Amino acid sequence: MELHFLGTGAGLPSKDRNVTSICLSMPQERQAVWMFDCGEATQHQMLYSPLKAGKIEKIFITHLHGDHIYGLPGLLSTRSFQQSDLQLEIYGPRGIKEYIEVSLNISGSSTANSLIIHEIEPGRIFEDEGWTVDAIELSHGIPCFGYIVKEKDTLGELRVDKLRELGITPGPIYRSIKTQEVTELPDGQQIRRADFLGPDKPGRKLAILGDTTYLPTLKEVLQDADILVHEATFSADEPEMAKAYGHSTALQAATLAKAANVQKLVLTHISARYHKEEAEILAEQAQTIFPATELAEDMSVFEVMKK
Amino acid sequence: MELHFLGTGAGLPSKDRNVTSICLSMPQERQAVWMFDCGEATQHQMLYSPLKAGKIEKIFITHLHGDHIYGLPGLLSTRSFQQSDLQLEIYGPRGIKEYIEVSLNISGSSTANSLIIHEIEPGRIFEDEGWTVDAIELSHGIPCFGYIVKEKDTLGELRVDKLRELGITPGPIYRSIKTQEVTELPDGQQIRRADFLGPDKPGRKLAILGDTTYLPTLKEVLQDADILVHEATFSADEPEMAKAYGHSTALQAATLAKAANVQKLVLTHISARYHKEEAEILAEQAQTIFPATELAEDMSVFEVMKK
Repeated sequence: MELHFLGTGAGLPSKDRNVTSICLSMPQERQAVWMFDCGEATQHQMLYSPLKAGKIEKIFITHLHGDHIYGLPGLLSTRSFQQSDLQLEIYGPRGIKEYIEVSLNISGSSTANSLIIHEIEPGRIFEDEGWTVDAIELSHGIPCFGYIVKEKDTLGELRVDKLRELGITPGPIYRSIKTQEVTELPDGQQIRRADFLGPDKPGRKLAILGDTTYLPTLKEVLQDADILVHEATFSADEPEMAKAYGHSTALQAATLAKAANVQKLVLTHISARYHKEEAEILAEQAQTIFPATELAEDMSVFEVMKK
Repeated sequence: MELHFLGTGAGLPSKDRNVTSICLSMPQERQAVWMFDCGEATQHQMLYSPLKAGKIEKIFITHLHGDHIYGLPGLLSTRSFQQSDLQLEIYGPRGIKEYIEVSLNISGSSTANSLIIHEIEPGRIFEDEGWTVDAIELSHGIPCFGYIVKEKDTLGELRVDKLRELGITPGPIYRSIKTQEVTELPDGQQIRRADFLGPDKPGRKLAILGDTTYLPTLKEVLQDADILVHEATFSADEPEMAKAYGHSTALQAATLAKAANVQKLVLTHISARYHKEEAEILAEQAQTIFPATELAEDMSVFEVMKK
């Protein structure tokens, strides 16, 4: 399971950084890609990645500024050329449906019946047997979301030591005990699974935020995330400018990462004022208070391991 | 005056060719850029050209398929960031206004008051003291235009030999004779300019066509163009496929170029099925009947000289 940064710039494309898009390649059993934002030329960036448009299962849009959505119509058209039969669901603020529908209809593009668009409010927006996605409200002048992607906790290991104490030796019976709440042994004894399991194995937690001013109140909802993707449009010496434009500094992102006790902070959405090497300063500023910080470049890939 | 090909592919972007856009850098006295079509990532391609978004004065859209328009919202947003005070006029088929307005409004983008959008019909769509632009109807399933850009003819050279015969020797009087219809000499003699000019100097003529099936009837309107930009989506051996999809073969483009007696044919809108070297075959096919054929690549530049 990896996060692929297809675009890591703010506002305008530059030769260094395209506008925003991030893809999450889901674990292998799912064989799908979840995308977060889709700035112009995201499909072009995908040509240089291992990702395929036809594998995209969900697109989460943080907000409607052009540098986060203008790549959607082209990506959807290309996806329809690829004749993917995977259903695609798009989640985003009110207005996203009109934008997509007008763009596709006027250009005579077809997406067959495979597209569902959800205009969302903050809260739980998706849940299945393995994952939940919650949208949280950010502060950026227009409605703007962060997405908390959480893998469900899974059952702990079978306590073989305790089973052996009861004289139950390894065999097919162990599988029964693990998959059923209660298993009856040949001698009539009732085995309750809950009594023979170790602690739950925690699922992965990813927090992928859209553009926002520094919001220390997010500390709770981001708590213990395995990875926090936070914008760092500006350098630590520009907090007023950051606030005025609805953005954060690298230092503010690090402050939040530390308060929320996340495992790793990845900085993205870097202003074009910081050219290639200058942008490294943003990571260094963040590392002064949160060492596990990385600066995303276009095409950076970060693995998100199971604990 | 040059034609810059920013994107020369058909339908989808590939690593070889971006989707369609062509820019015409107008003669120096005008210092402006006229754009023809604006597929996704056209503004990205501009980063690698000498062209600036803020210098674009007119955009002519041939038709509303996504590979010809999806770069417009991003280009317009970037142009507004550059705070160009040059008025921009966009010409295109019905629907272009709604597409642009919905895209910009939903994304909160501003273009100040400097944008005028014309939904056009075939015929004369622009004229000023130096240039005319006519839209001609093509055949592509949906409304699709070609644009004939014509520089006005200018006055011929002063016939110095004839003036000398009358005893009028070179001096400021020559300028008066050239700039006024009638000049009165100190001796009362009336000099009519028309009697002392050589033949008009013909202005340049460019024909930039959108997607189309082979249309031999265009021969008249394309007659004697200095440059004809014609699509060649398919190879000479696929005329049925070309027709079925509303496109032309390289050989058909050449046949039309020859019939219209144009100076140069440039092939563009090449299907991604023809990879880099394979696409050369399209030019070779065309050259068998029209030797002055060139194949456009992304970033190709063709000068259009005054005769």
